[in-house]
Amino acid sequence: KKLPSKELTYSNRGMTLEEDLNETNQFYLEQSIAVIHKKPTPVQIVQVDYPKRSAAVIKEAYFKQASTTDYNGVYKGRYLDFEAKETKNKTSFPLQNFHDHQIEHMKQVRNQNGIAFVILRFSLTDEVYLLDAKHLIEFYDQKESSRKSIRKLDIENFGFLIKIGYHPRIDYLRIIDSVYFQKES
Amino acid sequence: KKLPSKELTYSNRGMTLEEDLNETNQFYLEQSIAVIHKKPTPVQIVQVDYPKRSAAVIKEAYFKQASTTDYNGVYKGRYLDFEAKETKNKTSFPLQNFHDHQIEHMKQVRNQNGIAFVILRFSLTDEVYLLDAKHLIEFYDQKESSRKSIRKLDIENFGFLIKIGYHPRIDYLRIIDSVYFQKES
Ligand SMILES: [Mg+2]
Ligand SMILES: [Mg+2]
Repeated sequence: KKLPSKELTYSNRGMTLEEDLNETNQFYLEQSIAVIHKKPTPVQIVQVDYPKRSAAVIKEAYFKQASTTDYNGVYKGRYLDFEAKETKNKTSFPLQNFHDHQIEHMKQVRNQNGIAFVILRFSLTDEVYLLDAKHLIEFYDQKESSRKSIRKLDIENFGFLIKIGYHPRIDYLRIIDSVYFQKES
Repeated sequence: KKLPSKELTYSNRGMTLEEDLNETNQFYLEQSIAVIHKKPTPVQIVQVDYPKRSAAVIKEAYFKQASTTDYNGVYKGRYLDFEAKETKNKTSFPLQNFHDHQIEHMKQVRNQNGIAFVILRFSLTDEVYLLDAKHLIEFYDQKESSRKSIRKLDIENFGFLIKIGYHPRIDYLRIIDSVYFQKES
């Protein structure tokens, strides 16, 4: 029997981008559309207690910087890899939201013919865009000599607006289909 | 300048299968052969302290059971996904090493046309096999009515022995090439 709490969640406002994407990926999984998971938060474990007759307790640990992006998986045989970020800015997306490691990882994925992109949300207007990593990398690599953020105008031009839905909330595979699988159909 | 400790590590005996695979994946990454990472250990964080002027400290957390396998990534555009396990048994590999979740995940990956497999080490003889998930799933799904382990004989028949090397230690992509990419060349 399905828990009623789950049904309620979908109509809940104020969900984070991560929650919306987890719901979306869960939908894809249940419908056998794709297998995409968020990677666990990387943690450096320092001390663990092993109490008798109960579960091990981590007593000291630290957050580590992720060496890759947050989401990856498989869709129609292809490798998909993306990072999701949101901003409260209205007219641009700050590049400081990304780390060198993540950009390097996206380059490596592209080099292996994987599909790499970012999902960017402007929180105040709830607009969500898919931007191919190729463009993000270009802006990022120019950030020392040029702008420290991507103009929303450029995201609109180079990226794709994702229509926000009910279930799934952020149907990014619709964009992936039209952009990356068009030639093959 | 390269740390000499790294050089020493490669000749170190008694490395775990995970260490050997991390070294192998690092080699693939540096040589631009493939992008395969081990996922972080999933942890349920309960309490975090935020001391002034220093990093956040996780004070209470618990290990969660992984909902997927340990390794995934991209090789020549294809999605690769695998779990690695070792046993001290000599003639069979216990199926209790795997969880329902992991088997379910491998089925989903296969369903999306991803390449799913396991890397199995017999520690006492340092023999490492690659076995396609198709076979593991068959043995696993019969374990209630049949054997609770896979006979080594079956692993030899259905799987592929990976030659142990120096750098990389476990060159599993050589097998992947011949088994999964043969038709395309
Ligand atoms: Mg992140
Ligand atoms: Mg594991």
